[in-house]
Amino acid sequence: MSRKHNFNAGPSTLPLAALEKAAANLVDHEGLGLSVLEMSHRSKDFEAILAHAKETLAGLLSLPADYDVLFLQGGASQQFAMVPMNLGSGGAYVTTGAWSQKALAEAKVVGEPVEIWTDKADNFRKVPAESEALAVPAGAPFLHYTTNNTIFGTQFHYVPKASVPLVADMSSDFLSRPIDVRPFGLIYAGAQKNAGPSGVTIVVGRKSILESFAGPKWVPTILRYETHAKADSLYNTPPTFGIYLCSLVFDWIRAQGGWRRWPVAPRPRPRASTT
Amino acid sequence: MSRKHNFNAGPSTLPLAALEKAAANLVDHEGLGLSVLEMSHRSKDFEAILAHAKETLAGLLSLPADYDVLFLQGGASQQFAMVPMNLGSGGAYVTTGAWSQKALAEAKVVGEPVEIWTDKADNFRKVPAESEALAVPAGAPFLHYTTNNTIFGTQFHYVPKASVPLVADMSSDFLSRPIDVRPFGLIYAGAQKNAGPSGVTIVVGRKSILESFAGPKWVPTILRYETHAKADSLYNTPPTFGIYLCSLVFDWIRAQGGWRRWPVAPRPRPRASTT
Repeated sequence: MSRKHNFNAGPSTLPLAALEKAAANLVDHEGLGLSVLEMSHRSKDFEAILAHAKETLAGLLSLPADYDVLFLQGGASQQFAMVPMNLGSGGAYVTTGAWSQKALAEAKVVGEPVEIWTDKADNFRKVPAESEALAVPAGAPFLHYTTNNTIFGTQFHYVPKASVPLVADMSSDFLSRPIDVRPFGLIYAGAQKNAGPSGVTIVVGRKSILESFAGPKWVPTILRYETHAKADSLYNTPPTFGIYLCSLVFDWIRAQGGWRRWPVAPRPRPRASTT
Repeated sequence: MSRKHNFNAGPSTLPLAALEKAAANLVDHEGLGLSVLEMSHRSKDFEAILAHAKETLAGLLSLPADYDVLFLQGGASQQFAMVPMNLGSGGAYVTTGAWSQKALAEAKVVGEPVEIWTDKADNFRKVPAESEALAVPAGAPFLHYTTNNTIFGTQFHYVPKASVPLVADMSSDFLSRPIDVRPFGLIYAGAQKNAGPSGVTIVVGRKSILESFAGPKWVPTILRYETHAKADSLYNTPPTFGIYLCSLVFDWIRAQGGWRRWPVAPRPRPRASTT
């Protein structure tokens, strides 16, 4: 079979090994007599799949002990609302393209964000230079940016410095390059570009942020990170098959050798000796 | 293979024919050279899958033209919040078990619902009798109930009468028996019991309700029914594989002959002739 590669909007190409394993197990999962699609999310078998997905991703990310991984639903579009609903209303936004504009627009629905940098007038041709100081208001609950801008084709090749929690939408480049999560308060990504199928949203965040709800009392229980952090992504029925497929993709990445640790910028050349 | 039937919490047994077709197509969907998991949700191929899912379900339900079907994410737990956020704060709730209690609790987070009937003191041993008049407050935006109560084992065998829009959580018995949707303003169901995999939430509702947002301005765009109704469930990346699997389950139900139209209560016995 000639495999097609899809570079369009939404779901993208998955590793063949992951698809083949999922297909082989779809009717009878590992000889258990039922599909992963039919397993109770409260069963030991599914709990093992969820734990394996989480541990493998944590290993790939060299995740520090004070970080947690959540598997949620609703895509980045739901995260656009959840971030300000949980972390606080007046977040600082860097808008570098369509997705960060959508994140800002949604933050305006649920709160009062501040746009601190945009290149909209120049049709989003660039992202802030690493040397540029971003004017984050004192007391802003977070700084939000989009690591990679589909449509406009720009990408951050550095991690912005911030004295407030750094929040990144990595939907389109999550797992495409090594990440050091430690500068980030919270990272979110729809799984469908590099990590799995659509319908799974991966959130990686500092436990102190995920577990301490700081939003208004009208925020639905299901939109609170603490709900999912305390229930280990089993507050309600999760997208079980999607999480299984993510675990197969994580296995595949690990089988390729995983990643070297950050930084991945070209290493400085050894200086010619002058002595 | 001996197939196991799972009657536990969450995802449940699926038709073998649906699983086998999904497995056969998982690596190479209908000879297209890619998996349905890898298709853009903006592609013609996926649009055809979505349209087929919607049309088949509409056919099974004999859906009137003024009703629409949405495929969402987040399960019934997210609907517990979306219903009052969209239809209005002061809904009337009939609590007949664990799930309707959860729906009521969530309605209290986002608004001011009224519990008009409960059997909690008697450990949810019954549902209201059909002859019982439910005291729905004048001006209540809707009446909410749960058609089937897992854990407690009770089920409504009639549709309550209401002068306000009737909203039903059918998560555990949707597609297990014929439904006449016409008495309902809105029906929602997590797909994972009878209609497909977890990660897909089916909403069937009157267009006038789905398309006219009546909630407060802080309701996130993604939690508004009108957002999804206007975009035909393609506002953001939907759970594409889950919708495909639902379409296979709908096909299977249709292949069994679909349903006779409501009512399904035992037909009255022919009266013995007295002449």
